[in-house]
Amino acid sequence: MDKSSRILLAHGSGGLLYRRLVEEVLLPYFTNPILSQLGDAALCDLPSGRLALTCDSFVVKPLFFPGGDIGRLAVCGTVNDLAMSGARPLYLTLGLIIEEGFLMADLQRICASIAQAAQEAGVSIITGDTKVVGKGQADGIFINTAGVGVVASQRDLSRGPQVQPGDKVLLTGSLAQHGMAVMAAREELAIDPPLVSDVAPLPSLTDAIFKAAPGIKLLRDPTRGGVAATLSEWAESTGLSICLEEAALPLERPVAALCELLGLDPLYVANEGKFLAAVPPKEEKAALAALRAHPLGRQAACIGAFTDEPGAKVSITTPYGGRRLVGMISGEQLPRIC
Amino acid sequence: MDKSSRILLAHGSGGLLYRRLVEEVLLPYFTNPILSQLGDAALCDLPSGRLALTCDSFVVKPLFFPGGDIGRLAVCGTVNDLAMSGARPLYLTLGLIIEEGFLMADLQRICASIAQAAQEAGVSIITGDTKVVGKGQADGIFINTAGVGVVASQRDLSRGPQVQPGDKVLLTGSLAQHGMAVMAAREELAIDPPLVSDVAPLPSLTDAIFKAAPGIKLLRDPTRGGVAATLSEWAESTGLSICLEEAALPLERPVAALCELLGLDPLYVANEGKFLAAVPPKEEKAALAALRAHPLGRQAACIGAFTDEPGAKVSITTPYGGRRLVGMISGEQLPRIC
Repeated sequence: MDKSSRILLAHGSGGLLYRRLVEEVLLPYFTNPILSQLGDAALCDLPSGRLALTCDSFVVKPLFFPGGDIGRLAVCGTVNDLAMSGARPLYLTLGLIIEEGFLMADLQRICASIAQAAQEAGVSIITGDTKVVGKGQADGIFINTAGVGVVASQRDLSRGPQVQPGDKVLLTGSLAQHGMAVMAAREELAIDPPLVSDVAPLPSLTDAIFKAAPGIKLLRDPTRGGVAATLSEWAESTGLSICLEEAALPLERPVAALCELLGLDPLYVANEGKFLAAVPPKEEKAALAALRAHPLGRQAACIGAFTDEPGAKVSITTPYGGRRLVGMISGEQLPRIC
Repeated sequence: MDKSSRILLAHGSGGLLYRRLVEEVLLPYFTNPILSQLGDAALCDLPSGRLALTCDSFVVKPLFFPGGDIGRLAVCGTVNDLAMSGARPLYLTLGLIIEEGFLMADLQRICASIAQAAQEAGVSIITGDTKVVGKGQADGIFINTAGVGVVASQRDLSRGPQVQPGDKVLLTGSLAQHGMAVMAAREELAIDPPLVSDVAPLPSLTDAIFKAAPGIKLLRDPTRGGVAATLSEWAESTGLSICLEEAALPLERPVAALCELLGLDPLYVANEGKFLAAVPPKEEKAALAALRAHPLGRQAACIGAFTDEPGAKVSITTPYGGRRLVGMISGEQLPRIC
């Protein structure tokens, strides 16, 4: 295929060009026996357990950024949502909406990245759909993935134990890397070395914490809205307050510097390869040790704890002993970071 | 909510406005116990059988047309893909990509339509995702739905019997209604009464044919690319030819007239509430009787048969005894009809 080949409106029809796009460009990246049947729906057998189902659309801009691209994000985002529910991710759907004129070479680069991330995450893409819209009717490419997994009964956090005052809040690594990497790439900020997104599939890291801390109570990946949004929701849903220690927050210096420059609070910036966990205090050490032994959890830290202070608020204690509230932002700090 | 309210970029963040959009605008349309848990993934128990999984993106233009809208289409398209694989559809995901400035009232109208179609189809929306992109970066709204169903073993067409020469090709109703209705609405053609899309959920109609014709061999809804694309694929996959009778094709006069006016062949135009089935000749009568007894199958007809003519071609015999080949189109007749 010519390097300057581009997607045509006709690639989105049900005709021959559509079939060629599917069979010659897309399918070779994702080959597996279920996908190859190419039925209206993909058929497969599931191991026993409860079904977990999730979906996510991805509209990140720019499409390519240090550490990843929209394809890697579309796999990791969905796989991580499954992992956070305690599920073992198994299958993904792949829905592409492509703008007419999109470079075929970029589509292939994105597909290669999807295939690579799916392999890392241990999932197969078993069904998909491609639509093409006219020039100016979308922004390059949008991707939707839905994911199916199975939750073994001992991992069903939705039926799990109640959070209590004293339970610890763990974070598996440094804050705000994804959001700031995308921001820097979008604004073409000349940061050297460039900020790199943390986008990564987390199922093997959740495996580690489930094993080390079977009493784990909550699990969530702080994507849009960042750590602040997740903890605000936890405070609201549990009716407990959460107190964080600013000094304990893992944060890389270049990320912190860019946040300061742009007036952003890293607690509100998206992550794509981190999770927050609530564990009983007696399991804190084992959980941290297990996380730190994993390549994606080396900087894992206990960043605070649940308390019975009234008001179900999230607050943070500064190194100088001050204390401020962490609310949910109402608006949008960084649009299109996933 | 004010009638002139519009979607803001901030509605796509993980912050408060996003939560208000989800909790106050979207969720009330789709309430069910699984969705209400609002976890990273939805958890549910499945009846026994093989899992069927499918996904589809919808970019139809205009968003509203006689007989339906993008919301009804997004439910029916995915539910019908499940039904065509022999599955009982159970659950849908709902991914929205909305352009900044989109009218909140239109979003609500679309959600109401999704809820209505889901109820007709007997499925629940159990998880979803909403993204907002800037003005001019999408065209109003794009919707992606993924669907999960279960295939009972006696309905597993993927392991079903081989098609043979003499097997009949049935079509459940008149051709090309969806594509021409959208086309007429898009071009604002003053047709009175307006052409109405056939978009409808087909699971109860597939129930009828599975019951009446247990020997059924193939099932497919002829959407993009129309009847011609589906039959071309069947000819290719079975290695048999298919001969159609033009006089037997159900086709409404206004649809035929608009096709002729625009130089379109109705065999290539999309349908969204019809299916094609291949049945053994001894089950033709029972199948047609069962289809015709159903409100969505009243015009069901046998439109042709598989033959052992060499070449695995699809051809059509005209009322005057002529015969022409029906190939797959390579290009795009009608972009964005689903």
